[in-house]
Amino acid sequence: MARPRVVIIGGGFGGLATAMGLRRADVDITLIDRRNHHLFQPLLYQVATASLAPSDIAEPIRGILSRQANVTVRMGTADRIEVEAREVVLADGARVPYDKLVVAAGVSHSYFGHDDWAEHAPGLKTIGDALEIRQRVLRAFEAAEWCDDAAERAALTTFVVVGAGPTGVELAGALAEIALRTLRRDFRRIDTTQARIILLEGGPAVLPPYPDSLRLKAKAQLESLGVEVRLDTLVTDIDAQGVTAGGTRIEARTVLWAAGVEAAKVGSTMGAPTSRAGQVKVAADLSVPGHPDVFVIGDLAHLEQNGKPVPGVAQAALQMGHFASDAIQADLAGRPRGAFRYRDKGNMATIGRSRAVMDAMGLKLSGFPAWAAWVVVHLLFLVTFRNRILVFTKWAWAWATWERASRLVWQGEEGPASRATNAADASLRKSG
Amino acid sequence: MARPRVVIIGGGFGGLATAMGLRRADVDITLIDRRNHHLFQPLLYQVATASLAPSDIAEPIRGILSRQANVTVRMGTADRIEVEAREVVLADGARVPYDKLVVAAGVSHSYFGHDDWAEHAPGLKTIGDALEIRQRVLRAFEAAEWCDDAAERAALTTFVVVGAGPTGVELAGALAEIALRTLRRDFRRIDTTQARIILLEGGPAVLPPYPDSLRLKAKAQLESLGVEVRLDTLVTDIDAQGVTAGGTRIEARTVLWAAGVEAAKVGSTMGAPTSRAGQVKVAADLSVPGHPDVFVIGDLAHLEQNGKPVPGVAQAALQMGHFASDAIQADLAGRPRGAFRYRDKGNMATIGRSRAVMDAMGLKLSGFPAWAAWVVVHLLFLVTFRNRILVFTKWAWAWATWERASRLVWQGEEGPASRATNAADASLRKSG
Repeated sequence: MARPRVVIIGGGFGGLATAMGLRRADVDITLIDRRNHHLFQPLLYQVATASLAPSDIAEPIRGILSRQANVTVRMGTADRIEVEAREVVLADGARVPYDKLVVAAGVSHSYFGHDDWAEHAPGLKTIGDALEIRQRVLRAFEAAEWCDDAAERAALTTFVVVGAGPTGVELAGALAEIALRTLRRDFRRIDTTQARIILLEGGPAVLPPYPDSLRLKAKAQLESLGVEVRLDTLVTDIDAQGVTAGGTRIEARTVLWAAGVEAAKVGSTMGAPTSRAGQVKVAADLSVPGHPDVFVIGDLAHLEQNGKPVPGVAQAALQMGHFASDAIQADLAGRPRGAFRYRDKGNMATIGRSRAVMDAMGLKLSGFPAWAAWVVVHLLFLVTFRNRILVFTKWAWAWATWERASRLVWQGEEGPASRATNAADASLRKSG
Repeated sequence: MARPRVVIIGGGFGGLATAMGLRRADVDITLIDRRNHHLFQPLLYQVATASLAPSDIAEPIRGILSRQANVTVRMGTADRIEVEAREVVLADGARVPYDKLVVAAGVSHSYFGHDDWAEHAPGLKTIGDALEIRQRVLRAFEAAEWCDDAAERAALTTFVVVGAGPTGVELAGALAEIALRTLRRDFRRIDTTQARIILLEGGPAVLPPYPDSLRLKAKAQLESLGVEVRLDTLVTDIDAQGVTAGGTRIEARTVLWAAGVEAAKVGSTMGAPTSRAGQVKVAADLSVPGHPDVFVIGDLAHLEQNGKPVPGVAQAALQMGHFASDAIQADLAGRPRGAFRYRDKGNMATIGRSRAVMDAMGLKLSGFPAWAAWVVVHLLFLVTFRNRILVFTKWAWAWATWERASRLVWQGEEGPASRATNAADASLRKSG
């Protein structure tokens, strides 16, 4: 009898945990991802804000799984799932049949129906996004240095972050530190410490999932860095010149989006009920109702427990991945699957150097202790030992010097090679 | 009296050495570069071959010069030099007046009149080039893994490097190591050790500037890695499917260009005599004949000494930068400038792990001793201490494990952000 074919869509925390959980299973696994790397997304904002290099927080998926002989990696985009035929169809037309399917395709930004905002306010989900944000921020200061118009100069040095969840808070804090400290000596004609960082939040507080006391502390820590925090402020328009929010116009040439997410499109191709954000509503065993051989896990899954949805965080994706691999092995052994239980191990968010909040293990911490715990936890969870060494070295150096070593802009370079890149990109888009 | 205005075009080795040499001079320096970073070009092939991250070998120019108060950095492209008006005109139309001008704009690839080859065979001069090469190589293996056509699979795993100077030799050696060792366990359906690496050279030997004994050793070391070295083989055509060289057709989906260079266009806008490659022929004091206040240095300068042109290498650019800064200070003090003398400190090129050749300090070395010397010299010359630590850590790790940690592909990603990038690129190109 042929070995059961397990197909996993997505090489994030959920997909990798599933694959690794099946390392001793007598199955043939195909892991499909449109990128060739796993990304440690909790540190992506540090690539965007020039502290880390992409390779510090990303690992080739093939490398991670190279010694697991029952996995074959396929770089490609899953376009749709045909649940009756039991096949995944890739964007290039190839069909990948499965006996068990685990969909861990994640989420991307949602502009709440305003897709035209995307080009003016990039979000932060991929390395490409992070490098785009990095170059916009650095180019804005470059342009301001040589701008003779005071109003334009002010708009160039005004940075708006939309959304005060963990990503928005981390971005705003890092931008403030860049302006206040990192770039302070680098310019001659502008004073970077006069840059404005504005954090807009539609709700009544920063960091919605945290207890009230920590929300207030996080806000105070942001304000101590000079960030203007505007709560209960809904964004109604974004264009190339700025933002309209709460009825007020803000002239800002750089706007970053950390507000909404929407589910990967492939999740909606199974005909299963979805949440408002497009997540697939899964049963207690994380399977799609009516299709017990299809699991949806991670950010793409919608599951309520104790009246609240399981949050879209790395620890939930990891736990779901472990559960899915156990459930597949239970099926193969003829055992019952049981039901998934999310264990919340707590939350932590960093705001800047020695500034953070933490709500975990019964402790509510803020300031330096929370920041130190954040550093330790994030170093421990980086995928490989090598990256732990490198990131630790970079953080220690940055802490001592306030330097951000990755302040590089290389997009939009001229010359034959950049023409070649565009040609290659165009042909990839055409073929894919 | 206003302080003399010194304008430097280019933040490479020559331009930076000039600026730093003037750190105590009573002048106002404007350093213009179209990129925001200085690049340690001798290690660029390691970014292209996934060993190092861009930020390991690049430093923001503003950061390097932040404590030198007499320098203002301007990110922009020098379009032309108006020697009569004594102004540099930028691509955005801005005019930068000078009293002394140092042109250190370097060179880019030359396809010897075949500009259509550029999109099929990227060269290696910028970080953008290096990332383009990296993604082409990695995508070729990804495509081969899932290709069912044997001929196409062979073409996908055939890599041609055109030109056997130091860059071509280093690229070919690194590609061989990637195929033989780094990726060996990563694929399930192809055997990466069967990949072909072909190094094409129009002349009779690899590494033209080296003595014969070392050329032979370099060729033997390349061949011991499995590289096919074809000498006296002129390339007559390159297209998307492969290369025609020496009358033979080679089917290869990845072709890299390391053959020719041509001078930056801005050098030709002064009306000065140029070499065949477009370099500006300079006087013995590195000035442009008839324009004593304009210096041309580095790869862009053409100067013969002892019947041979000064080579386009980092050490020559550094020495010329030091000379130009001394000459400017001599002018200000009313002293004579003297004449530039190039001191050749020797050459070294690496071919792979423990493989290299070196011709310096009266020594001709090959193999491990040359490689060890190469490692020490290149670490010492990295711009900052921090980068030395990081690069050393990465090299030590890679040496022990054969791993190449930067095997990341992120170009051509789909989604809103990549659309946004293209929009930004387009608007940058439009605006100049």
